[in-house]
Amino acid sequence: MENYLQNITGGGIKTQNKRVGARTVKFGRPIYIIGHAAVAGKKEGQGPLGDSFDIVCDDPYFAQKSWEKAESELQRQALSLAVRKSGLAERDIQCVFGGDLLNQCIGTSFNMRGFDIPFFGLYGACSTMAESLALCAAYVDGGFAEKAAAVTSSHFCTAERQYRQPLAYGAQRTPTAQWTATAAGAAVLSSGGQGPRVTMHTTGKILDMGINDTNNMGGAMAPAAYDTLSAFFADTGTAPEDYDLILTGDLAKVGSQVLRDLFSQDGVTLGNNYNDCGLMLYDTEKQDVHAGGSGCGCSACVLTGHILNGMRGGRWSKVLFAATGALMSPISSQQGETIPAICHAILIEA
Amino acid sequence: MENYLQNITGGGIKTQNKRVGARTVKFGRPIYIIGHAAVAGKKEGQGPLGDSFDIVCDDPYFAQKSWEKAESELQRQALSLAVRKSGLAERDIQCVFGGDLLNQCIGTSFNMRGFDIPFFGLYGACSTMAESLALCAAYVDGGFAEKAAAVTSSHFCTAERQYRQPLAYGAQRTPTAQWTATAAGAAVLSSGGQGPRVTMHTTGKILDMGINDTNNMGGAMAPAAYDTLSAFFADTGTAPEDYDLILTGDLAKVGSQVLRDLFSQDGVTLGNNYNDCGLMLYDTEKQDVHAGGSGCGCSACVLTGHILNGMRGGRWSKVLFAATGALMSPISSQQGETIPAICHAILIEA
Repeated sequence: MENYLQNITGGGIKTQNKRVGARTVKFGRPIYIIGHAAVAGKKEGQGPLGDSFDIVCDDPYFAQKSWEKAESELQRQALSLAVRKSGLAERDIQCVFGGDLLNQCIGTSFNMRGFDIPFFGLYGACSTMAESLALCAAYVDGGFAEKAAAVTSSHFCTAERQYRQPLAYGAQRTPTAQWTATAAGAAVLSSGGQGPRVTMHTTGKILDMGINDTNNMGGAMAPAAYDTLSAFFADTGTAPEDYDLILTGDLAKVGSQVLRDLFSQDGVTLGNNYNDCGLMLYDTEKQDVHAGGSGCGCSACVLTGHILNGMRGGRWSKVLFAATGALMSPISSQQGETIPAICHAILIEA
Repeated sequence: MENYLQNITGGGIKTQNKRVGARTVKFGRPIYIIGHAAVAGKKEGQGPLGDSFDIVCDDPYFAQKSWEKAESELQRQALSLAVRKSGLAERDIQCVFGGDLLNQCIGTSFNMRGFDIPFFGLYGACSTMAESLALCAAYVDGGFAEKAAAVTSSHFCTAERQYRQPLAYGAQRTPTAQWTATAAGAAVLSSGGQGPRVTMHTTGKILDMGINDTNNMGGAMAPAAYDTLSAFFADTGTAPEDYDLILTGDLAKVGSQVLRDLFSQDGVTLGNNYNDCGLMLYDTEKQDVHAGGSGCGCSACVLTGHILNGMRGGRWSKVLFAATGALMSPISSQQGETIPAICHAILIEA
């Protein structure tokens, strides 16, 4: 696995080839997560991971005038706090990678309007935390920044009225439906320092297995998770048991079982070291979230709260974080399209 | 300008620091644009740059069943052709960076569903061609891919009904309004080869100068273009006259004049070597486009058609391409918000 490191020459300057196998890259140096913060809403704060969040706010408006502005505020708090916890000032952050679920990603754009920091906007739906960390780590590793940050968010009320129905309509939810988390997560990456390190990433491909039920996101996204995780294991010559924790983003009850089934068809068992952020964020029995959590903020707050705190505390040392996104829109569904999905994975080592 | 090259050490492995000044990076080796393609609609084909497009299609549906599906098809043709013109097969492309204006970027996701290529989704509104080329070049330069591509698109009919009114309503347009181009552009970047090279980029910051007229995008975006171009000139110690062509994306009549005015307040003259894609794509006198063109596809097709063809033909050798994006949504405007904007710049040298 180490012998992929070779120098290739382009334009007379030596650059490491950092590719491992077909789809995975290994950073040339450890990229440290020197600060991270998770901010969540009331329901998320009442869940089993409530204590791991830096801020829990009971007001769904976060003292703003609309839910959309509340989502920007949620994200602002997460980014601002992650920078503070890293011991840096905002002016030290050379760029931010971020996005969210809202049309035109306004949660992020209106948040970033308040920061005087160069910005790359992303759209990866609920895979955004992994996509932003992968690109941010690549940008730092490539020598384009020394300190950079990744951020994302979601809000139950903004997502519900954009993707489904007005909240006041009180539509019934199917058992496969997932609950969009009101939460944000942010992390500051650095070319030097201490703490958990992003060491590899596998880029997702868009897969569409023909599912058209927008109340079954987990089922639609599971094949993408299977594809990316399989590519990661093949590229690195490793197996699930080589990791302390394999964590998918938001497959929830239905999708995580589909993922286990897909792997078992290959004779591969996802054991007790496999979990899913959508199953962890809420008490799915008591909190009335049906199949579990979802939304960019779900895997983001689980990672930047519970997981990174646990890695710093010695609980896990190798975590494979694979966040999944469903890339449909209400318009594509109305036009009879099925649901394309993607999964980006990063390896974090402590 | 060359003395920024120094080796920095992180984790024991030497990596070049590629930063130039506060916001600009210079790639460690030339990143070649080895293939590029522009696909456009009927109106764009009838404009002054019509001959520079690889494909012009008179059918606004591109033989699909909806305008949204047409936009994906437009983008598919551009990406597929750019790969073919680079002399590669699709399997040689290690990842694609792309996005578009549609909610949840469905133009791009549904296009990429048909390619078996790892994908990073972006949202930069009309700055997407520059954002995707900048990140793609950084990814290649960092050693994470040897061949990668950037793609974006827009479609008059999808954008108009999403951002403004149903087309059948026939709303009158103000003189400051711009016409969303039905067009797509794609480029294949490589760590080796021949052709124009992406050599530097400056990352945009989100600026909002308080404009709330969504029929004056050029005015809203001009300050972001001024900010990014000023940063580029300051970081590199150069001036506008050092470039054969400075090309903004989609400021059109109003915004490009605002940009000239902002620079002239600093005593800097943008001369005849300054132009704007929104002014070039249409005959603004005869084609009834009011202030000019706009949309991700506007600067994308001007760059991947007219400009890169011209650079290959020896017409220009140093082109500073600065694409601008307005990051509002209909919801943010309805909530009384003003318009945040961003501008990403790349330097292309032949």
